[in-house]
Amino acid sequence: MPMLPNLTPDMDLAAELFAGLRAGSADGEGVTREAYGPGERMAHALVRAAADRIGLESTVDVAGNLYMTLPGTDRAAKRLVIGSHLDSVRQGGNYDGAAGVLSGLAAVAGMKRAGFVPGRDITVMAIRAEEAGAWFPVSYPGSRMSLGLLKPDGLAIKRQDSGRTLADHMREEGFDPDAVARGEHALGAHNVAGYLELHIEQGPVLDTEQVPIGIVTGIPGSRRLRQARVVGEYNHSGATPRKYRRDAAAALAELVHRMDEEWCRLDTMGHVLVCTFCTMATTAEAGFTKIAGEAEFSLDVRSVSPHACDLMFEAMHRFMADIEARRGVRFERGPETGSRAAIMDPGIRAGLARAADALGIAHLDMASGAGHDAAAFAEAKIPSSMLFVRNQNGSHNPHEDMRMEDFAAACAVVQRWAAEAAQ
Amino acid sequence: MPMLPNLTPDMDLAAELFAGLRAGSADGEGVTREAYGPGERMAHALVRAAADRIGLESTVDVAGNLYMTLPGTDRAAKRLVIGSHLDSVRQGGNYDGAAGVLSGLAAVAGMKRAGFVPGRDITVMAIRAEEAGAWFPVSYPGSRMSLGLLKPDGLAIKRQDSGRTLADHMREEGFDPDAVARGEHALGAHNVAGYLELHIEQGPVLDTEQVPIGIVTGIPGSRRLRQARVVGEYNHSGATPRKYRRDAAAALAELVHRMDEEWCRLDTMGHVLVCTFCTMATTAEAGFTKIAGEAEFSLDVRSVSPHACDLMFEAMHRFMADIEARRGVRFERGPETGSRAAIMDPGIRAGLARAADALGIAHLDMASGAGHDAAAFAEAKIPSSMLFVRNQNGSHNPHEDMRMEDFAAACAVVQRWAAEAAQ
Repeated sequence: MPMLPNLTPDMDLAAELFAGLRAGSADGEGVTREAYGPGERMAHALVRAAADRIGLESTVDVAGNLYMTLPGTDRAAKRLVIGSHLDSVRQGGNYDGAAGVLSGLAAVAGMKRAGFVPGRDITVMAIRAEEAGAWFPVSYPGSRMSLGLLKPDGLAIKRQDSGRTLADHMREEGFDPDAVARGEHALGAHNVAGYLELHIEQGPVLDTEQVPIGIVTGIPGSRRLRQARVVGEYNHSGATPRKYRRDAAAALAELVHRMDEEWCRLDTMGHVLVCTFCTMATTAEAGFTKIAGEAEFSLDVRSVSPHACDLMFEAMHRFMADIEARRGVRFERGPETGSRAAIMDPGIRAGLARAADALGIAHLDMASGAGHDAAAFAEAKIPSSMLFVRNQNGSHNPHEDMRMEDFAAACAVVQRWAAEAAQ
Repeated sequence: MPMLPNLTPDMDLAAELFAGLRAGSADGEGVTREAYGPGERMAHALVRAAADRIGLESTVDVAGNLYMTLPGTDRAAKRLVIGSHLDSVRQGGNYDGAAGVLSGLAAVAGMKRAGFVPGRDITVMAIRAEEAGAWFPVSYPGSRMSLGLLKPDGLAIKRQDSGRTLADHMREEGFDPDAVARGEHALGAHNVAGYLELHIEQGPVLDTEQVPIGIVTGIPGSRRLRQARVVGEYNHSGATPRKYRRDAAAALAELVHRMDEEWCRLDTMGHVLVCTFCTMATTAEAGFTKIAGEAEFSLDVRSVSPHACDLMFEAMHRFMADIEARRGVRFERGPETGSRAAIMDPGIRAGLARAADALGIAHLDMASGAGHDAAAFAEAKIPSSMLFVRNQNGSHNPHEDMRMEDFAAACAVVQRWAAEAAQ
C-alpha cells in the first residue's frame, strides 16, 4: 500500500453546515426536513452550495439524489460513494442522516485542501427520503431509485402527512418519476466500487461501552404489522363473568407478554433480534365499566437474521391461534411489510478497522439496530458498510447529542479509508 | 299469613310507558336520558303523569327523586319502596333503570284496579342520576341524597359531558342542593320497611341458564383506577437492545396479563370477582419504529367480597413493584375510587322466592355484577333486595332486549311480594 498523505477532514466546514442545516429547518422543538418537501430541499441546496464552493462536480439524478464528486485520476474506474440522507423525522435531531453527508464533504474538502487527488472518483451522495417512519412508509425509496431497485408501484406510495403520492411530491420538487418508472438510474455494481455511510448510533451501546465509533457488521431486516387488531365483544365490566367474556384488551396483553417472553427465550439461545409493540390501544368505543371489544396494535420485529424474524412470527401465529381459541377473540393481522437484512462487506470493514487503528481510535464491531440506505446498496451487490458515531439520547428526537470530537474522529476514519480505497 | 287477593300487574300501563319513554328519548341509535338533564326530566314527567292518572300520591324531594305512593291502611307504618332510576347512558337501551320504576307502577296500578288496599304505604320511587359511568362519576348520588348519605363535597362532582357540577345541574332542574348540603333527606331506616329494585340482568347468565328471573344475593363493591399510567422512555425500536429498554407497552401488557392470571388463580380458589382493564393505550407520542415511553390504563375490580378486591389490589402492587424493578418503568396509579359491597336482605329474598314459587316462575339466586341503588339502601340499613329479569344483548347499548313475557312474570313477583310484605 502506498504511503497516504497527511490528511485531515475539514471540520470547520462540517460545523458550519450543521449550523446552517439547523437554522434552515428549526421547528421550535428540533428540526423538520420533510422528504421531497421544503426541509429536504433546503438541505440539498445548502450542501450543494458548499460543494460548489469547494470545487466538487455536482449532479442530480432523476429521483433528486445529489452527487458531489471529487474527480480521481482514472475517471473511468468504479467510484467510491460516501453517502447518507438529508431528510429528518418531524421534530427530529440535526444529526440523523446529515452527519453522514457532512462527513463525506469534510473528508473530500480536506483532500482538496491538501491537494490530494484520489485514484478514482470519490462521490459524496445526499440521498432522498430515507425516513420511512415519518414520510413514505417504504424502505429507502431515494437510494433504491438511484440503484434501480424501486418497483414502479413504489411511486404510488403516499406520504403519510399529505396523503399525496411519492410521484406527486417528486414532480413538485422538479424531478422525474416517469424516468424512474422507465428504469433510469445512476448507480450500480458496474460503476460503484464501494459505499460507506456514517451515521449516529441510534441506541446507547457506544455511549455505555465508552467507545467513540462502531463498525457495522450488518443491517437488520424486519417483519412488521403496522395495522393489526383484535376483535372481541363489548360487555358490561361488572355483569359479565369470566367465562362469558371476549376481552380484546386481555387478549392483546397476553399476546404482547407472550411475545416478550419468546424474545427472552430466543435471546438466551443466542438469537439477536428486537421485538417491539410500538402502539397498543383499545379503541374510541372503549370506556370505563366496559369490557373492551376491540384493540389495535403495531409490531416491529427486526434482526440481521431472517430466521430469527421468522421464529418470532411463527411463535406469534401459534399464540394468536391459542388466544383466539381460549378467549373467543379474532386477530386481524392486516398487511405485513418488511425489509431484507444486509451483511456489511468484510473488505470495507477491515479497511475501516485499519484506518481507525492507524489513527489510534478505539472501535467496536456491532450490528445496526435500524435500517439504513446501506442496505439498499448491499442489495445492489455493491460492497457496503457503515460507521456509527457515539451519540447521546437516541435519535428521532431533538435531543440527539453527538459530540463533535467523536464526529471528528469518525470523519478522520472515513477520510483515511476513502483515501486508501481510492488508490 | 292472610289470603292474598287475586292480583295481576297492569302490563298495558307498563307497555304504554316503555313506548312513551322510548319516543321521548330516542337519539337515532338508542335512547339518551341525561341525569339532571332533558332526558331524565322527560322520563320523570311521563311517569308522574301516569301516577296522577292512577290516583297515586306524588311528591318530589329536594334532590328531585320522585315518590308515587299507594296509601296503606296504616299511614304511620314504615313504607315499602319499589324503585329504580330513570336516567340512561348515552345511546343506551330503554330498559336499564326504567324497567324497575315501571314494574312498581304496574304492580300498584294492578292493586288499585283490584281494589286492594295494602296494610302500609307502597311507594314507587323514580331515582335520579344512577348512571355514574355516563354522567356524574360517583356512585348512586340520587338515592344517596334521598337517604342523607351523599357527603356535601359530592355536590361539586362535575358531569363528564358538561363539566358543570351536580349542584349546578340540580339547580337548573329546579331542585335544592343547599337543602341537600344541610342534610335534608326523605328516607331512612326509620320510615322504610324494605326496598326492592327490579332491573334487567346486564350479563348473559339468566339467558344462558334459561331462567326468567334472578333473586340477587349481593351487590359488588369495587376498587378502581380510572386514570392510571406507566411511564418508561421513548426510544428507537430498532436500535435499542433489550437491556436498554424502558418499554411502557411491554410493562403494561405484563401487568394486565399477570392480573388476569391472578384472577384465574383466585377464581379456582373460590373467590368470586371480576377484573377488567377497560382501557389500555399507548399515548399520542407513540408511533411506528418507536418504543412506547408511556401508556395509560383504567382498571375496574369488583366483588361482593371486599377481601377479594383487596387480594387483587395487593397482587397488583406486588406486580407493579416487580415490573418497575425489572423494566425500568414507573407506574402512576392516580386516584383510587370505589364503592362498598352490599348484602341483600335474606327476608326479602325469601319473600321473593315464595312469591315466585306461588306463581310457578323459575328463579335463580345470583350475585349482581354491576352496582345499583339498592346498595345505597342497604348502606342505610334498610332491608333491600333486587330482582333481575332475563335480558338479551347486555345493557348500556341500544340492543337491550328483555322479553315482555319475562318482564310480566317479574312484575307479578314484585306485586305479590309487595302485597304480602305490606300486610
